[in-house]
Amino acid sequence: MVLTLGSIVAELGGELRGDLSSAVQRLAPLESAGPDELSFLSNPKFRHQLATTRAGCIVVGPALAGEAGARGACIVVDDPYLYFARLTQLWKRSHAREDGPRIHPSAVVHPEAFVDATARIGPLCVIERGARIGPDTELKARVTVSEDCVVGARCVVQSGAVIGGDGFGFAPHDGAWVRIEQLGAVRIGDDVDIGANTCIDRGALADTIVEDGVKLDNLIQVGHNCRIGRHTAIAGCVGIAGSANIGAHCTIGGAAMILGHLTLADRVNISAGSFVARSILKPGHYTGIFPIDDNASWEKNAATLRQLYTLRERIKALEKR
Amino acid sequence: MVLTLGSIVAELGGELRGDLSSAVQRLAPLESAGPDELSFLSNPKFRHQLATTRAGCIVVGPALAGEAGARGACIVVDDPYLYFARLTQLWKRSHAREDGPRIHPSAVVHPEAFVDATARIGPLCVIERGARIGPDTELKARVTVSEDCVVGARCVVQSGAVIGGDGFGFAPHDGAWVRIEQLGAVRIGDDVDIGANTCIDRGALADTIVEDGVKLDNLIQVGHNCRIGRHTAIAGCVGIAGSANIGAHCTIGGAAMILGHLTLADRVNISAGSFVARSILKPGHYTGIFPIDDNASWEKNAATLRQLYTLRERIKALEKR
Amino acid sequence: MVLTLGSIVAELGGELRGDLSSAVQRLAPLESAGPDELSFLSNPKFRHQLATTRAGCIVVGPALAGEAGARGACIVVDDPYLYFARLTQLWKRSHAREDGPRIHPSAVVHPEAFVDATARIGPLCVIERGARIGPDTELKARVTVSEDCVVGARCVVQSGAVIGGDGFGFAPHDGAWVRIEQLGAVRIGDDVDIGANTCIDRGALADTIVEDGVKLDNLIQVGHNCRIGRHTAIAGCVGIAGSANIGAHCTIGGAAMILGHLTLADRVNISAGSFVARSILKPGHYTGIFPIDDNASWEKNAATLRQLYTLRERIKALEKR
Repeated sequence: MVLTLGSIVAELGGELRGDLSSAVQRLAPLESAGPDELSFLSNPKFRHQLATTRAGCIVVGPALAGEAGARGACIVVDDPYLYFARLTQLWKRSHAREDGPRIHPSAVVHPEAFVDATARIGPLCVIERGARIGPDTELKARVTVSEDCVVGARCVVQSGAVIGGDGFGFAPHDGAWVRIEQLGAVRIGDDVDIGANTCIDRGALADTIVEDGVKLDNLIQVGHNCRIGRHTAIAGCVGIAGSANIGAHCTIGGAAMILGHLTLADRVNISAGSFVARSILKPGHYTGIFPIDDNASWEKNAATLRQLYTLRERIKALEKR
Repeated sequence: MVLTLGSIVAELGGELRGDLSSAVQRLAPLESAGPDELSFLSNPKFRHQLATTRAGCIVVGPALAGEAGARGACIVVDDPYLYFARLTQLWKRSHAREDGPRIHPSAVVHPEAFVDATARIGPLCVIERGARIGPDTELKARVTVSEDCVVGARCVVQSGAVIGGDGFGFAPHDGAWVRIEQLGAVRIGDDVDIGANTCIDRGALADTIVEDGVKLDNLIQVGHNCRIGRHTAIAGCVGIAGSANIGAHCTIGGAAMILGHLTLADRVNISAGSFVARSILKPGHYTGIFPIDDNASWEKNAATLRQLYTLRERIKALEKR
Repeated sequence: MVLTLGSIVAELGGELRGDLSSAVQRLAPLESAGPDELSFLSNPKFRHQLATTRAGCIVVGPALAGEAGARGACIVVDDPYLYFARLTQLWKRSHAREDGPRIHPSAVVHPEAFVDATARIGPLCVIERGARIGPDTELKARVTVSEDCVVGARCVVQSGAVIGGDGFGFAPHDGAWVRIEQLGAVRIGDDVDIGANTCIDRGALADTIVEDGVKLDNLIQVGHNCRIGRHTAIAGCVGIAGSANIGAHCTIGGAAMILGHLTLADRVNISAGSFVARSILKPGHYTGIFPIDDNASWEKNAATLRQLYTLRERIKALEKR
C-alpha cells in the first residue's frame, strides 16, 4: 500500500513543502533513500547528507527547512525524530497484515491466569497460574510469565523474555547453599517494553516492580526486589542486581552493571559499559570505562595502573623534596 | 493458610519470645512488615530498623534478642538468615497449590530420554535423545536439555535455560572457519540451580561439568569443557569462556568475565564486573573495576590513563634529578 | 561404531605412521586420552604432554612428527587443528543416529513462511510469516525467526536464539518514549552460526545484516541496523549497539561491548571484555580492560585513579620546578 505525502500530513500534521499527491513507497535512511522514499533528518551531525541524498521527501526541523526545500520536497516539523516515530506507526498501521489468532493455540495459558480480551499472546508462550496480562498488551513468541506476575496495559514483550523466574537467593550453611524460596512476584506497569531474552526475577518477599513507561532492551537481567522507576530506558546486556532501586527518567547504557541494594536518583544517566557500585543520589551523567587502545599501549598502561597508588606516593615524595 | 508462631518454631526450632498462638499472615521485609507479618534481621547494618518496624514478630540472632524482644515478639536463633531461608521453604510447602502434570503435555521429551519418575518437566521444555533428568529435579517452562546431557537430583532449572548447546569451536582455514563438531555433553551434579536463559555448552570432546551444589543465576554463559567446582555460586550475566576450570566454594559477582583455559583455585571470590584474564591460584578476594565518576571527571582521568606509562617514566626522570 | 586409522587417513588424508588397522574408539583430549583413543596436538605450548599422554594415536604437525612418532602412532598433517575439526565432522557423520522429522511437529511454521526442503527445524521453533530458511540450515530447539527475516544456507542456529525481535527505538517526548516501529528485517547469509539465546534485532528501516561465514557465540546482542562482515567471529556475551558497522574477518572477544553508529575496519581484533566507544579504522589488536588484582590493591589503585588527572598536573608542576 502506498501513502501520499498529502495523506501523511493529513494524519500526522507538519508543513508540507511539495506535492500532496506524491506517492511514498517506503521509509528509508537518508543515505540509501531513493526518489520514491521518505526519509528524515533530526541529528544536525548528518546535515551534510542533504547534499547527496536522493530521498523523494525529507522530514526536517525548521532550521533545515530552507536547505531541504531547496533540493526537493520536505515536511517541516518541530521535532523530526518524534515525527519519524509516529510515521513508522502510521506506516505499520497502513500496511498491517491479517492478524493471527489473539491467543495462539500453541500458547500454554493456565486456566487460572487472566488474559485481557484485547491482549495478544504469541505462539509457544507460557502464562502460569495467577498471572495477569493487561489490555492491548502483546507477548511475541515464546515468552514466559510466571505464577502471579502482572503485566499492565499496552506493553510489548519480545520473544524469549522470562518474567518471574525465581530470584537468586541462598543462605550459606556448612559450605553449601540453602534455597530461599521466592515468595514475591513481578509487577509491570503500563506501556512497558521488554526485550528479547530479557529476565525479570520475582521478589523474595515483596514484588519486583517495573513502573509505567519503562523500556528494557534485550538480554537484560533484573534481579529480585528491584524497582525501576517510570520512563527509565535501559539498553541491552545490562545487569541489575537484587534490590536495586532505580529512579524515574534514568537512562542506562548497554552492558552497564548496577550492583544491588543501592539507589539511583531520578534522571541519572549511566554511560554504556559502566559499573555502578554505589548509590548515585544526584541527577547527572556518570561514566566508568577503561578506554580502549592498541593492545601494546594498553599493556603498558594497564601494567602501570597496578602500581598507581605507589606512583602517587612517589609524586608525594618528590613534592616534599 | 495461616501459620502460628507456635507451629513455626515447632517445625524449625528457635526460641520464641512471644505468643505461640499469634497468627502470621505473610513473611515481609522489615521496612514494610505489618503487625500480622513475620520478618527477620540478619545484617547488623539494618539494626536501626528495629526502632521503626511494625512487624508482628522478628527473627533475630542472640545479639539483638534483647532489643527485638523489647519491642514485641521475636524468634531468637543462631543464624537468622539461614532460618529465614528455611522459613520461606516452610511457607512454600504450607501454601502449595495443586500441582499440574508431572511432565507437562506440551513438553517434547524424546522417547530415548530418561526422566526420573519424581522429576517435574514444565510446559514447552525440550528433552532430547539420551538426556537424563534426575530425581526431584524441576525444569520450569521452556528449558532445553540437549542430547546426552545429564541433570542430577534436586536441581531447579529456570525458564529459557539451554543445557547442551554446541560449544563455540571453529578452526580457521583460508580466511573462513571450519566447524569443530562438539562431541561431548554436559554433566550437571545434584542440588544445582540454573537461572533463566542461562546457557551451558556441551564439550568438544570431553563433557562440560557442573558439580554438586553449584548455583548459577540468570543469563550466564558457560563455555564448552568448563568445570565448575562444588558449591560455587555465580551471579547473573557472568561469562565463562571455554575450558575454564573454576574451583569449589568460589563466588563470582555479576557480569564478571572469566577467560578460558585458566584455573581458579577453590575459595576464590571475584568481585562483580571484574575481568579474569589469568589463573588465580590463591584463595582470596579479587577485583578489577573502573571506578565510576561524574562523566567530566571520568573523561579527564580516562584520557590521562592512556598516558599512564609515560607519566611513570616522567616520575622516574624526576626522581633521577 | 569404530573407525580405523586407515579409514581416517583414507577419508581425510595425512601421513599415518602406525598400523592402518588400529581401531579408534573415541576422540579425546591429550591429557585424558587412552590407548584406544585418538588425540591431537596443535598448540606447541602443550608439547610437554607428548611425554605423558597415553593416547593411541596423535595428530601432529611436521615439527613434532619425530617426537610423536617415537612414542607411538601418529598422523602427520600440515594443520593439526584444521585436521581435528574435520575429524570431528567425520566422527559425527560416522556416528549419526537416526534423524527425527525434518520439521518437528511441535514447531510453529507460518503457512506464508518458506522453509527449504533440506532445512531442519527443531522442536518448538517459531517461524513467522514471510521468513525464509535456506538449504541445509538447521534450527535447533526453541528458535524464533520473526516476520520476513531470512536465514541463508548451511547455517546452524542454537536453542533459544531470537532472530528479528524489534530493535530498541523510541523517540523522547514529554518525558516519555514514543515507539519507533521497526519496519526492517534481518538478513543472515550462508554458513553462519548463531549461539544459544543470542538475539539479532530487526532493522528500523533497512535490514540488519549478518554476512556469510559469520560465527556468533551464545548470549550475544546485535542491535538493529548493524552489519557484521564476512567471516567475523564473535564470542559469548558480546553486546553490539544499533547501527554498528563491523568489518570482515574481525574477532571480538567475549563480553566486549561495541557502541552503536561506529565502524570497525576489516581484520580488527578486540580483546575480550573491552569497550569500543569509537570507530577503529586500522586493522590491529585493541584492548581496554581494567587489570584484576587482589581486592586491597585494587581499592588503593582505583581510588588513586579517580585523581589521575590531578596527579598528571602535579607531575607537570614538579617538572617545572
